[in-house]
Amino acid sequence: MAERAVCVVGTGLIGGSLLRAAEKAGREVWGTSASEPTAAAARADGFAVSTDLDAALRRAAATDALVVLAVPLPALAAVLRRIDAVAPAIRLTDAVSVKVAVADAVATHAPRARYVGGHPMAGTAESGWAAGSAGLFTGAAWVVAADDGLDLEVWADVAELAWACGAHVVPAAADEHDHAVAKISHLPHLLAAVLAAVGAGQAGDELPLALAASSFADGTRVAGTRPELVLAMCEGNRDALLAAVDDALGRLGVMRGSLASTGGLAATVQAGYAARQRWMASRSPAATRIQLNGPGVLAELRDLGRRGDVVVGWAP
Amino acid sequence: MAERAVCVVGTGLIGGSLLRAAEKAGREVWGTSASEPTAAAARADGFAVSTDLDAALRRAAATDALVVLAVPLPALAAVLRRIDAVAPAIRLTDAVSVKVAVADAVATHAPRARYVGGHPMAGTAESGWAAGSAGLFTGAAWVVAADDGLDLEVWADVAELAWACGAHVVPAAADEHDHAVAKISHLPHLLAAVLAAVGAGQAGDELPLALAASSFADGTRVAGTRPELVLAMCEGNRDALLAAVDDALGRLGVMRGSLASTGGLAATVQAGYAARQRWMASRSPAATRIQLNGPGVLAELRDLGRRGDVVVGWAP
Repeated sequence: MAERAVCVVGTGLIGGSLLRAAEKAGREVWGTSASEPTAAAARADGFAVSTDLDAALRRAAATDALVVLAVPLPALAAVLRRIDAVAPAIRLTDAVSVKVAVADAVATHAPRARYVGGHPMAGTAESGWAAGSAGLFTGAAWVVAADDGLDLEVWADVAELAWACGAHVVPAAADEHDHAVAKISHLPHLLAAVLAAVGAGQAGDELPLALAASSFADGTRVAGTRPELVLAMCEGNRDALLAAVDDALGRLGVMRGSLASTGGLAATVQAGYAARQRWMASRSPAATRIQLNGPGVLAELRDLGRRGDVVVGWAP
Repeated sequence: MAERAVCVVGTGLIGGSLLRAAEKAGREVWGTSASEPTAAAARADGFAVSTDLDAALRRAAATDALVVLAVPLPALAAVLRRIDAVAPAIRLTDAVSVKVAVADAVATHAPRARYVGGHPMAGTAESGWAAGSAGLFTGAAWVVAADDGLDLEVWADVAELAWACGAHVVPAAADEHDHAVAKISHLPHLLAAVLAAVGAGQAGDELPLALAASSFADGTRVAGTRPELVLAMCEGNRDALLAAVDDALGRLGVMRGSLASTGGLAATVQAGYAARQRWMASRSPAATRIQLNGPGVLAELRDLGRRGDVVVGWAP
């Protein structure tokens, strides 16, 4: 059996990288962009990318391809309505950075689609087709939603696409994914923005920025991401993000109290050091091979993800 | 005239790099460490480093060398008392990350020293002699204190050492320096610690750390710094750091309110983006050459630093 063809909707950094990676892995690939200059740039690089969304979706329906949505959250509803109109029962996944909101949008606008959410955990501060690369997902975690009731055949399609792109699969419930990314992706963007603003301070006092070195450079790097991308990502994950922000505010408040009263920062600094060490130690997760059968397989997969393990292929 | 010899007290990352850089620039250099294994490692690399502080200071007094203090703030008083005992009128600077507290300690424990504070803005998450390199200061800002009443001859010594190490000089009043580094160095360490702790969350829920990618990696990098170094740095700058923490808390509180009420984050994200762009644009400061004369020269130097300009050498 030839491996499943891939249709990518949205060819920015993530979609464009996915198109390149899947093509390099031998898949038949094509894509679509809302921007003619972007589509032209992709074509100039040898990829079949057009602005004709309906045609791309019809080709996916005709070849039973996997459609990957790689557009920002605010652009999703319009694409889903076209899917429902021209290719309603398509195999569908996405690469959007929140999962509950996308699942809700699919249920509303394209309820017949065979949808299994995905989220490759890769990115750079750059954006757009030109910033993409076939290697972007190498070694990255690729979340595949594992909520009860999902279509296991499409689950396998999404996992195989992740593996073809060099990533490992982390199964997770949509809401657990959203809480996790609020902590490790969305909160970092907001703290970076606040740190940059504190450092810049008042115009006319240029001394702080003149002294800023590597700790400021690293701590504010993602503040350089295009604001509309950060807003689409963070505002689409409001409830989980509020919980993460409150967690951070609580810890900062305790720290502020300690600094003001005793002058001590040991609890904060040691907890941060231990957490960073724990993360470093978790960088080599247990690589698991699975079979997609049994009635409780999705629950087992969610447990696997909570343990920090990853899936790298099928068990024989 | 031969260039001034340099005696470095403390040969960790900063002092060890300074020893290497000054030696590479042709200076006569020697150093001292409180740790015999560190001293032995430095000697194995060909540097005259011993644990005999008094002998190193006497040699500095005999040769009119510049002594550089590169020990953590809590270790400073003991060294200063030895200076007052064996080499009281030495030319003295330092590489400690706060300036008011060091100036106060010098005034208390070694009041006869000809002291001009310094702070090279360079570092890595690594520490110790082995982590040092002659190139650590290349292109870095090196603050030289410019408070009224300082010894201009030693000011020139410190500036020339900075230039010899490949850095550019940023003149600043000690208290303005401390407020600046609270914003761009100490606050980044505390935010990194809090972010790491939020991401690590509860043991048993490994999903967030399993998904953490570049935004978390960058945002928490300095949380991996040895806690005792972070504590020495941050706790020694309590008043300025409280102001920076309150600035950050105020901005985070406004953001939290907006997220909870309207769901909007545009003000925070756009301000962060603008601040990061402003910092990137300031990376090529105006390179100035100066003469150290006239009654108001230190005030002029402070203004120069507030404008974000840097000093790269003497005007003819």
